Amino acid sequence: MKAVGIKAAGDSSQLVLVDRKQPTLSKGELLIEVEAAGVNRTDILTRERSTPTPEQVELGIEVAGRVLDTNASDKFSVGDRVMGLVNGGGYAELAKLPADRAIPLPHALSYIEGAAIPEVFATAYQTLFWIGGLKENETVLIHAGASGVGTAAIQLAKQLKHARVIVTAGSQEKLDFCKQLGADVLINYKEENFASVISKETKTKGVDLILDFIGASYWEKNLESIAIDGRWVLIGTLGGYELSSFNISSLLQKRIQLTGTLLTPRSDSYKAKLSQELAYQTLPLFENKTLKPIVDTIFPIEKVKDAHDYMEASKNIGKIILSV
Amino acid sequence: MKAVGIKAAGDSSQLVLVDRKQPTLSKGELLIEVEAAGVNRTDILTRERSTPTPEQVELGIEVAGRVLDTNASDKFSVGDRVMGLVNGGGYAELAKLPADRAIPLPHALSYIEGAAIPEVFATAYQTLFWIGGLKENETVLIHAGASGVGTAAIQLAKQLKHARVIVTAGSQEKLDFCKQLGADVLINYKEENFASVISKETKTKGVDLILDFIGASYWEKNLESIAIDGRWVLIGTLGGYELSSFNISSLLQKRIQLTGTLLTPRSDSYKAKLSQELAYQTLPLFENKTLKPIVDTIFPIEKVKDAHDYMEASKNIGKIILSV
Repeated sequence: MKAVGIKAAGDSSQLVLVDRKQPTLSKGELLIEVEAAGVNRTDILTRERSTPTPEQVELGIEVAGRVLDTNASDKFSVGDRVMGLVNGGGYAELAKLPADRAIPLPHALSYIEGAAIPEVFATAYQTLFWIGGLKENETVLIHAGASGVGTAAIQLAKQLKHARVIVTAGSQEKLDFCKQLGADVLINYKEENFASVISKETKTKGVDLILDFIGASYWEKNLESIAIDGRWVLIGTLGGYELSSFNISSLLQKRIQLTGTLLTPRSDSYKAKLSQELAYQTLPLFENKTLKPIVDTIFPIEKVKDAHDYMEASKNIGKIILSV
Repeated sequence: MKAVGIKAAGDSSQLVLVDRKQPTLSKGELLIEVEAAGVNRTDILTRERSTPTPEQVELGIEVAGRVLDTNASDKFSVGDRVMGLVNGGGYAELAKLPADRAIPLPHALSYIEGAAIPEVFATAYQTLFWIGGLKENETVLIHAGASGVGTAAIQLAKQLKHARVIVTAGSQEKLDFCKQLGADVLINYKEENFASVISKETKTKGVDLILDFIGASYWEKNLESIAIDGRWVLIGTLGGYELSSFNISSLLQKRIQLTGTLLTPRSDSYKAKLSQELAYQTLPLFENKTLKPIVDTIFPIEKVKDAHDYMEASKNIGKIILSV
């Protein structure tokens, strides 16, 4: 079968289409005929860092497609349309998907749209609700509001908790899009100091929750922007990871809960529980179009290098998808 | 009535015995005839920092004594023996104690012992269970194991969750005492690198929870010592609060939850809920002596300067109490 591999750890020029053996199923895994696969930043890190056996690297952590082999699962039938998080190998014609985290694809959605859901909505759900403990009518600051996780988080925070949503992004086009999704306060970080805007907008109280993909470059402003008893979830370090100073007494004075998280390295049981809760809470809302998967661009799998280059340029609003 | 005030913000020589008016009760407050008051580090900070009206400073945040006026509360009677967290003014002959956080003093305990319970057991309970989420049989690292909160935390972690308890302290005498309370692994931080000992003792897995009173000087070693999905509760900065570098990617990679907390500035409703849950969970264990308040030294209220000096020298094992 056709799949994407790498020649060696490195930049996008290392990506290569290879011919691989069909995956061998373990107990509890479905075989999926992949129609579309999502592109994620974790794929870029895998591409850059995977040594010393690059020939074994199987890129891709989420797919949408048809069940080809149920492997004795009684929850799915051959031909079922599903989406879900895979343990690598999503950039391929065939992939193994654990049945306990396969999510039925709503009739209203295409495979392309389905591939835009699992990673970003699961990450946004986990960070907003499980880790961030977002409550009804609280205020949340979502950095990189137009990113894949950002667009999912804006919708989930508004639709499930009626939160007040403040976003940052780097262009008016991105901010306009966030507004369409329901964001209440829009900040162009290139033109305004977000901490000052937030102080004014919240009457100096600050925000109850921060979803932070940025890290070091926003650290001090995030500390200024967070409320007493605020939660701060660190899910990326696009703005660097080395702090040259940090006064930790602010953590005490504001009683901040700062949590780092990554989804991909978590256990199978964690991903199963998260997928099931996400499905339960959101499938009706995807079916009736209250929640929308946000697709920016679709690349055929043969153009995977262009897809990675496009993501690294941070030009996308929402997801980048490979069609297989 | 007799009470402790300060002449000006500053060192312990500013402490002074004053004659104050009897407190005026608000709705829901009991009047307590104070028999004993606990000394806490927060009292030292209040003494040092209270400006610009030092004459109004009322030191002391926990007491044990007899109810003198129930103020129409139907939960207590005149003469009841109680202990609890007060909103300042504990170093005095009479104090106001909100009825919804007054805890009946077990018959088996003296007033002196009662004054050694509220602040440190409530803080240890809050940090271990509410914030730290300690589960059955997990491993917890308790720094300053012989301190007031440390001695409470060792007992609560062992008795309520059968945790494996690792402590650090600065002398063999303190470590021996922690062992008597149930600590499993004893580390003299002056003689050993605690991170190395923990790596060996946990087979490189690390600890599930850290209670950190120290802050900056232990930062890197705490990062080394914590397990994946570990919780780290910062409740003091005895070792400084300025980090000169911090690689935040460790928070992501280990999925650490780092939470700063202080008890004294929290709301009345928070303290009431915490006091009630603490009473429910621990009073039978205090009554049957499974849990023990740890009293190091008792100073008459007239010697309050000596009590503060003694605390600042960090010589105590357990609590320092003022008898009134």
